[in-house]
Amino acid sequence: MPSEDLPDAIDLRREFHEYPEPSWCEFHTTSRLVDLVEAVGVDECYVGEDAIDPESRLGVPEQTVLDDWHEKAARRGARDDVLDAVEGGATGLVAVLERGDGPVVGLRVDIDALPVAEPSDADHEPAAKGFRSVEEGIMHACGHDAHMAIGLGTLAELADREFDGTLKVFFQPAEEVLGGGEAMVNAGHIDDVDSLFAVHVGFGYSTGTVVAGAEEFLAIRQRRATFTGESAHAGAAPQDGRNAMQAMATAVQNLHAIPRHADALTRVNVGRAEAGRASNVVAERAVIELEARAGTNPVLEAVDRRVDRVLEHAAGMYDCELSTETIGRAPRVDSDPVLASTVCEAAAPVSGVEEVRRRGAFGASEDATYFMDAVAANGGQATYVIVGTDHPSGHHTPRFDVDEPSIDIGTEVLAGAIEEALST
Amino acid sequence: MPSEDLPDAIDLRREFHEYPEPSWCEFHTTSRLVDLVEAVGVDECYVGEDAIDPESRLGVPEQTVLDDWHEKAARRGARDDVLDAVEGGATGLVAVLERGDGPVVGLRVDIDALPVAEPSDADHEPAAKGFRSVEEGIMHACGHDAHMAIGLGTLAELADREFDGTLKVFFQPAEEVLGGGEAMVNAGHIDDVDSLFAVHVGFGYSTGTVVAGAEEFLAIRQRRATFTGESAHAGAAPQDGRNAMQAMATAVQNLHAIPRHADALTRVNVGRAEAGRASNVVAERAVIELEARAGTNPVLEAVDRRVDRVLEHAAGMYDCELSTETIGRAPRVDSDPVLASTVCEAAAPVSGVEEVRRRGAFGASEDATYFMDAVAANGGQATYVIVGTDHPSGHHTPRFDVDEPSIDIGTEVLAGAIEEALST
Amino acid sequence: MPSEDLPDAIDLRREFHEYPEPSWCEFHTTSRLVDLVEAVGVDECYVGEDAIDPESRLGVPEQTVLDDWHEKAARRGARDDVLDAVEGGATGLVAVLERGDGPVVGLRVDIDALPVAEPSDADHEPAAKGFRSVEEGIMHACGHDAHMAIGLGTLAELADREFDGTLKVFFQPAEEVLGGGEAMVNAGHIDDVDSLFAVHVGFGYSTGTVVAGAEEFLAIRQRRATFTGESAHAGAAPQDGRNAMQAMATAVQNLHAIPRHADALTRVNVGRAEAGRASNVVAERAVIELEARAGTNPVLEAVDRRVDRVLEHAAGMYDCELSTETIGRAPRVDSDPVLASTVCEAAAPVSGVEEVRRRGAFGASEDATYFMDAVAANGGQATYVIVGTDHPSGHHTPRFDVDEPSIDIGTEVLAGAIEEALST
Amino acid sequence: MPSEDLPDAIDLRREFHEYPEPSWCEFHTTSRLVDLVEAVGVDECYVGEDAIDPESRLGVPEQTVLDDWHEKAARRGARDDVLDAVEGGATGLVAVLERGDGPVVGLRVDIDALPVAEPSDADHEPAAKGFRSVEEGIMHACGHDAHMAIGLGTLAELADREFDGTLKVFFQPAEEVLGGGEAMVNAGHIDDVDSLFAVHVGFGYSTGTVVAGAEEFLAIRQRRATFTGESAHAGAAPQDGRNAMQAMATAVQNLHAIPRHADALTRVNVGRAEAGRASNVVAERAVIELEARAGTNPVLEAVDRRVDRVLEHAAGMYDCELSTETIGRAPRVDSDPVLASTVCEAAAPVSGVEEVRRRGAFGASEDATYFMDAVAANGGQATYVIVGTDHPSGHHTPRFDVDEPSIDIGTEVLAGAIEEALST
Repeated sequence: MPSEDLPDAIDLRREFHEYPEPSWCEFHTTSRLVDLVEAVGVDECYVGEDAIDPESRLGVPEQTVLDDWHEKAARRGARDDVLDAVEGGATGLVAVLERGDGPVVGLRVDIDALPVAEPSDADHEPAAKGFRSVEEGIMHACGHDAHMAIGLGTLAELADREFDGTLKVFFQPAEEVLGGGEAMVNAGHIDDVDSLFAVHVGFGYSTGTVVAGAEEFLAIRQRRATFTGESAHAGAAPQDGRNAMQAMATAVQNLHAIPRHADALTRVNVGRAEAGRASNVVAERAVIELEARAGTNPVLEAVDRRVDRVLEHAAGMYDCELSTETIGRAPRVDSDPVLASTVCEAAAPVSGVEEVRRRGAFGASEDATYFMDAVAANGGQATYVIVGTDHPSGHHTPRFDVDEPSIDIGTEVLAGAIEEALST
Repeated sequence: MPSEDLPDAIDLRREFHEYPEPSWCEFHTTSRLVDLVEAVGVDECYVGEDAIDPESRLGVPEQTVLDDWHEKAARRGARDDVLDAVEGGATGLVAVLERGDGPVVGLRVDIDALPVAEPSDADHEPAAKGFRSVEEGIMHACGHDAHMAIGLGTLAELADREFDGTLKVFFQPAEEVLGGGEAMVNAGHIDDVDSLFAVHVGFGYSTGTVVAGAEEFLAIRQRRATFTGESAHAGAAPQDGRNAMQAMATAVQNLHAIPRHADALTRVNVGRAEAGRASNVVAERAVIELEARAGTNPVLEAVDRRVDRVLEHAAGMYDCELSTETIGRAPRVDSDPVLASTVCEAAAPVSGVEEVRRRGAFGASEDATYFMDAVAANGGQATYVIVGTDHPSGHHTPRFDVDEPSIDIGTEVLAGAIEEALST
Repeated sequence: MPSEDLPDAIDLRREFHEYPEPSWCEFHTTSRLVDLVEAVGVDECYVGEDAIDPESRLGVPEQTVLDDWHEKAARRGARDDVLDAVEGGATGLVAVLERGDGPVVGLRVDIDALPVAEPSDADHEPAAKGFRSVEEGIMHACGHDAHMAIGLGTLAELADREFDGTLKVFFQPAEEVLGGGEAMVNAGHIDDVDSLFAVHVGFGYSTGTVVAGAEEFLAIRQRRATFTGESAHAGAAPQDGRNAMQAMATAVQNLHAIPRHADALTRVNVGRAEAGRASNVVAERAVIELEARAGTNPVLEAVDRRVDRVLEHAAGMYDCELSTETIGRAPRVDSDPVLASTVCEAAAPVSGVEEVRRRGAFGASEDATYFMDAVAANGGQATYVIVGTDHPSGHHTPRFDVDEPSIDIGTEVLAGAIEEALST
Repeated sequence: MPSEDLPDAIDLRREFHEYPEPSWCEFHTTSRLVDLVEAVGVDECYVGEDAIDPESRLGVPEQTVLDDWHEKAARRGARDDVLDAVEGGATGLVAVLERGDGPVVGLRVDIDALPVAEPSDADHEPAAKGFRSVEEGIMHACGHDAHMAIGLGTLAELADREFDGTLKVFFQPAEEVLGGGEAMVNAGHIDDVDSLFAVHVGFGYSTGTVVAGAEEFLAIRQRRATFTGESAHAGAAPQDGRNAMQAMATAVQNLHAIPRHADALTRVNVGRAEAGRASNVVAERAVIELEARAGTNPVLEAVDRRVDRVLEHAAGMYDCELSTETIGRAPRVDSDPVLASTVCEAAAPVSGVEEVRRRGAFGASEDATYFMDAVAANGGQATYVIVGTDHPSGHHTPRFDVDEPSIDIGTEVLAGAIEEALST
């Protein structure tokens, strides 16, 4: 059985933890995943533009950043064939087991790490046990290392079982920037999926708890807006400037003042700004990064139209040109209650599971919702499963860590649910 | 000689002081002026649309205000023929002495009063001497009462003298709102004027001082801007509003932030605002009154384009409609130095004149500049004469008063200068 | 039986409809209500400072407005003793039936009208049937006329029944400005109430529907803020001003930009603004009226601290003095489920009742919550009952009208529930 | 005669041009200047804390920047004794010729370069002739290379002449950031100066023109303001943030809206801003760099008080801490007309001088005014001399270049004027 070749789940997680890569730079990670799914013995393994639509990617870093990580992956022994396929940041893969004409079931996990500096002291288990990140300033601080282990483990479990149907495991890049979900969906492998499971560890749920169907995602759109005016000497000719600084300040004030919406909660934030060069020059350029969120997709659209209006007129007020770019995006989709029930049933008998919840509020944003949305649009069902794990500090913080027994729990729950979905 | 019928200059000034009328409501004043110029024996007296282009008027009050003052003038015995001619606020007149084909000389004085409440105590001379304003809240607090006396006196003096040419005295309404200058210019009587004198008393110069040619007027444009959005319940449906309050606030902030100009001093002020109805309703309407000033006409135009841009985009940012209306306007024109020299020469021998200055900074705005501009455009010369008068408090304040001996000084200086101009 | 003297409920409602009075000016209304509760035969009737704490009133109009309505009430035959008691706007009354030592039960209704102009065409039933408002621009457009009829009817019903306890009917003034609730509570009659019922007709529920316990009130605070700076000539000395216009605009922008709150929905609105006098004067004074709302009382407090901070620093930024005044206020309180069940049971058998709902979202603000809060604080129970009524257009709009059969339904439901509460 | 050792003026200028150093990093430049003034044979040469008060420096770069340039200067052969003295950025020097008890005369020149990238094409003379800057991105683009040549040349000329008195040449660092003037003044060598000459080439005047006494400097203060709030997750807990982004935007808007001043022209500009980290985090930190200028020192103070007020309250409005730091500063001082006349007389006979102007508007800011102010405060006289030079493009632009014959003109004019001042 090919899956015997797969290392232990905990070892896998630790290996991924030690070699984290940021969004769209998962070159070495993709290469290792290809090795491992081949070891499992998949029927198909799609990489590069076969797995990702490059045009749909959001939040891709600058070419020099991509090049640096690509080169580093090569130095670390990543496979040439994979490196060629994912060149320029077409990372991620889709692994497929085809066993007949039955249902098509999908499992989506994410693979990228975060710009967080990992502690090196002994209180932090990855440091104590020797698998601390080798990349200073980059860390798996959201559990995607565990997600990959679960994805591989589930694939291996199913490879060992008999079923009539197809299993596709989506190893999605660039979730942290909400930039990879739509790009992988647009590559098309999701289109024939009847049932989809997405999985995340943690979120405050302790080891032993499983949430079968997460709800209350926030739809989100993140954008970069650039105001381009004209510089002028602030002392000698202030009237000659087209002041990008003032356009920017007007935008910031009015974006935060976009009205609340009675139909759903909303959020607006301008979180980054950079403008001008020196105190004695009227600023010719200003850049802001902002986001809008909402409890429903239509309300997000309504808020986003307000955002457009504010940006356009803040620029116009100071005779500046405006350019905007979406840098991250995800819709709101709720888990399907029927498929969530399938997870409940699968979870109940799993060793280590202490509590199974049918539903639970997510309260944040995730681009797994693109997969869920696509499946629902095609008449299928999707659910987002949270696998509890004791974590010493919050997601995205330096002391985040996964309680490793939760990995096997996740694998067993998903394998059970997928097997059930394949047999329906 | 007809001018023997004219009352004494001081009595005239006191009569006008007692019956002040606001801008565009000078119905009774116009009627009395017609009586008096007829008493002088003018050859032509133009009133109503023969003296004023109604379409060019700015700052005309609402119809009910016009009606009230029209009716009041009728009750006070204003002439029916004049009242008919000036109906609806076509106030003011042009009185003409035609004595041959020689030069055409103009004198421009203004006739409106201010919304200032006159004191009634004995320290205030008009109250002590019994000619305090009969209209509560309206007062000749800028010396236009003296201007009319000077205009009539000069007309009478010239009527008694021999000359070959034409004298036109322009009794302009609505100077205080910068609303009558262009309207009287556009009626056309200024078009053939070769030399024009405008006159103002005071401005901090004491009795006995004459400034022959004022300079450094500020070009000005005053506007009313109305933002019309859509109301909504602030609690139940804030997203349904198109918020005129926020559009207004954005406009106020950005108008005050219009940059300085290196070529000339500038001013911007939003001086009045009114918006919305109640705290629980998103405001559907907001009105602001604002002005821009500049040391030169091109700089005013540059600032005004900025004003337009701010207003347009403040409205657009909140999806509001914008309407704007000019409510006052005057260009910058400097006095002609040659004609000012004529005034200097005429002033020197006049009894009571102690100091003659060729030039002096004005530092404010005046719509006499429309007349000066028109004359210069037609190849003529114009100067703005300041006749010093001791005044106990500043122009536009309740305790403003004219030192009456300055009236005769003004009349003699202007009569002399006009006689010289007519003989050139 | 004294209640035989009471007119028919529909006639009562029509009489109140014909003579509407605005908040704190319910002089004639209070006089009529005193007549009517005396006709019913109450044991106590408190008016003036015995019913209202004058110091706690919010949103009291100017003295001249109070005087006008007081005089008008006198002309219409209001009783001198009542007019003396309510002088200066201490309107409203508390009517009490005392029948032994049993429970104390309260019923709260409101009595003021709105600044809405009532239509006069035949499509509007009050006009067609001859009881249109005699006060131009004032109208019972929220059903308080029906509330008074229900309050009186319930009082009369209970007067006819036997019970061991006390019934207090609170006829509260100034609900529309959220100004009377706390003032009546602070007069103390609520302090010994064990069970309280508040009632409102309509809110989109049709005739025959009864909501036994309304929930999701929005806590609210409405304020007036005044910025006082210093005027200056906008052309001659702009630097001398302390610009209340700019302080106001800064406040408006930043108030609307107060952040959302994750714990509850919030609302902020500046709905009215007035500033300055003329375009050429730096504004010395600006007034805004604003409100904050929230789904919980602590979140309202948090938002209100933000409001304070913005106002204080907007004033400080322009060296202006700030004064603020609360003009309306109400907390959030939810209905007690046990008492709501009592209403459900009482409503079920009432003729005309088609649907009884245990709970229903209110989604707006009401100062009945002061009464509910006080009762709960003293260990009692309170519920807010909505009596459905078909209404042709929304509350606070000119074509609002009450479907009169709902008045008897309301009376019967409340009488039944109160009787039950008195027997507990 | 020692000055025979000094290279030709043009060679000196070209050497300085080739090795430009930014403000406070003029380590190699100072070392070379010490070599050269020693070659001239000065009596005293003050460097380091003997020439500069470290505490008074403004705009000093970060330590790592200082260290890099210090090290680079060492590599290029700068003298160890000088490098030790100027360590940490106490650059610049004061060279003194003492020849008796007569008058003390000063000459002030500046020595720093700009962050401008010099062109390398043949149209740019320094490139064509082989003395283009060796430092990429740093360039003498304001003529300070010529100033040093003039300063050294004048020193050498005077060293060759006989006089009874003292000549001090101030080689001031960090003029471009308006950071060295006060620091050198506070070192005390200016205190006994009776007559001071400052010099600048160019400013649009062509070679052959000399302006003897520049006027209309703008007083200036440049500041960095930092707002420190508290970050929060923009989706999960927006209410927990203390938003430095909004504080910054409010400051930018209101700083630009500081009113004009009737007493003098003013300027306000926020030219640089940087805030926050990412769109999904409430920004905890924002930094702006701004400047205020005015035509007089009191008006600058008035505007600066407004700046303080806006910054303080923008921070307060969002509960942020504020820290401010002055990063550049210079007062307004006009040239002394008598000393300017001395320059006129000295300039007239100089070969190459075609036009001598007694006065000329400067219209910008310069920290030479600290020296001029100090001399005037001690009863002496100071003038700022502009030596015309044809320059292909404006100061601070990449194609700026000095027309080298103007260097000798400047040297001769100043040597003549200084000789005259020494003999008075």
